[in-house]
Amino acid sequence: MARGVGPSDGKRRPITARELARMIGVSQSAVSRAFTPGASIAPELREKILKFAEEQDYHPNAIASMLSKSRTNIVGIVVSDMSNPFYPALIQKLSQGLQRIGLQSLLFNITKGSNIEEQLSALRRYNVDAVIVISATMLSGATLHWATEGRAAILINRVVDDADINCVCCDNVEGARAIADHFHELGRRRVAYVSGLSHTTTNLERQNAFITRVAELGMTLTGRVDAGEYSYDAGRRAALEIAAKNNTDAIFFANDILAIGGIDALREDSGRRVPEDISVAGFDDIPMASWPHYALTTFRQPLDEIVTVVVGMLEDGSCQPGQPSSIKRISGGLIVRQSTGPLE
Amino acid sequence: MARGVGPSDGKRRPITARELARMIGVSQSAVSRAFTPGASIAPELREKILKFAEEQDYHPNAIASMLSKSRTNIVGIVVSDMSNPFYPALIQKLSQGLQRIGLQSLLFNITKGSNIEEQLSALRRYNVDAVIVISATMLSGATLHWATEGRAAILINRVVDDADINCVCCDNVEGARAIADHFHELGRRRVAYVSGLSHTTTNLERQNAFITRVAELGMTLTGRVDAGEYSYDAGRRAALEIAAKNNTDAIFFANDILAIGGIDALREDSGRRVPEDISVAGFDDIPMASWPHYALTTFRQPLDEIVTVVVGMLEDGSCQPGQPSSIKRISGGLIVRQSTGPLE
Repeated sequence: MARGVGPSDGKRRPITARELARMIGVSQSAVSRAFTPGASIAPELREKILKFAEEQDYHPNAIASMLSKSRTNIVGIVVSDMSNPFYPALIQKLSQGLQRIGLQSLLFNITKGSNIEEQLSALRRYNVDAVIVISATMLSGATLHWATEGRAAILINRVVDDADINCVCCDNVEGARAIADHFHELGRRRVAYVSGLSHTTTNLERQNAFITRVAELGMTLTGRVDAGEYSYDAGRRAALEIAAKNNTDAIFFANDILAIGGIDALREDSGRRVPEDISVAGFDDIPMASWPHYALTTFRQPLDEIVTVVVGMLEDGSCQPGQPSSIKRISGGLIVRQSTGPLE
Repeated sequence: MARGVGPSDGKRRPITARELARMIGVSQSAVSRAFTPGASIAPELREKILKFAEEQDYHPNAIASMLSKSRTNIVGIVVSDMSNPFYPALIQKLSQGLQRIGLQSLLFNITKGSNIEEQLSALRRYNVDAVIVISATMLSGATLHWATEGRAAILINRVVDDADINCVCCDNVEGARAIADHFHELGRRRVAYVSGLSHTTTNLERQNAFITRVAELGMTLTGRVDAGEYSYDAGRRAALEIAAKNNTDAIFFANDILAIGGIDALREDSGRRVPEDISVAGFDDIPMASWPHYALTTFRQPLDEIVTVVVGMLEDGSCQPGQPSSIKRISGGLIVRQSTGPLE
């Protein structure tokens, strides 16, 4: 019957929340709450309103609701390198975690080599509720403050010590020490470290903790190679450099994708046996680490726990500007596979 | 000097475009164009305006500009499976391509097993300029129409024949035929096919073209196994099933991640040599396909070209509702590596 009411061109004017509420005989606020995830409303009432809304082809207008509540329910996520399989896995889990509390993810890609501040200015222009930075590229505290100014902000997998910014990351020190202990238990005594982006806090934490623990255990650090980036090819090059010196029996790569490239280069190009001649360990536990050809010993990043903590901070508002910032380091776990073994 | 002007609590009212324009002595439209990627403005003028804007801490308000132009410059991207490395690579390139024309990507994750329409209702509520669907999960034409109603929409890597929706994908028929021809040239005559999600158009096109070409060339199709999903583990299981029948000398897996799982299972669990006993080919050319342990022969998806076509359709408006829809199939290329070889 309502179909006959519209203008003659056949296009019906969209129904409003007020009209819908009147039709069902509920308050306009009840309609609004029915469409707000987590809002207080009886399940039966919510179901009734949603069913009626669908029949009437009613959709709450997100833009209108954004202006009235000055909330967009959008979280900006700054990313820079999806070629490392660790990041898609993290983005996937994070984006699902955000969706569970009614938030959508607006992805901002920082492209290598171009002006980062220009790219981040787009982020400043969008009215997002919060900003999560999981960029592998190091951004200075000043840049992060500028880009996230006045909004809730969380940095994942990086720490900014010189600035008042919330950080959530794996306990890198625990992980690097566990790898050094593991090498030591296997009888390995001449060990090397391969960094990715050497100036990132992730790398510095892993590197310093590893080198410190190696010294504590009386092992010899035979080399520290800067691979220059977190990639398969960079891992290959670093492994060849270390193998050429012929003085190393175990290598800790700063992450898994480097270690996987390293294993391939050691076996294919340097004629080394892994784990017998040179044992190899990584960090992250990306899916490829468990593929049998690599069977990579690694320190697993607690992705689910990281996402839970981040989502919790958005829910309880503890990452809002004005709240004291915190650095949360989440415990991970050593995964021993066949890329490491006892010295023969 | 302007610093003294604000209210006494120290917070300055944000400067408006009109005020900025007056300060620089240019038109308000020039200020707007300086902040619009691709807009017509002299480079020196643009630089002058941006420099002045930064000094004055001016930012164009995207929400205001969205309302006045009813454009958000946001493209909704519907994704469902980032565990297949093909998707992060595509999302990365697509998101960079969109950024080049001033568009941001709003990612909508469809989670397996939950109500797809409920998840897509969020997409309907957001005022995005266009919707790009690169979901591995098959959505019906009716669902796609409902989710994208009234907006520009493009489906990547899937085709919907029964609906009026723009599709951009690799030429799957060309690819599958090239793999069959390649197997034939190597002397392989007993070939099998492994599907991922068997009901997706991507799979049906590859499967039908492969089986047809196999018949044309007088080869024997020894089996067709439905792996059930596009994953490493599913590829392993399918390869074991085929190897157990002991009647196959070449397998075409519907994509690379399946093929990589298949190679590992054939070598590790079935004691088969790849390529000698069983040659293996995939589809996509993900980064892992070129790792030496796999050295996977595959059909490369033309990602750059796909992104160029999609971005072009958004730029020229040919994907707007009301325009005739099209299905664009982009040519790829056979990449021959060492996972395939002549029958001994």
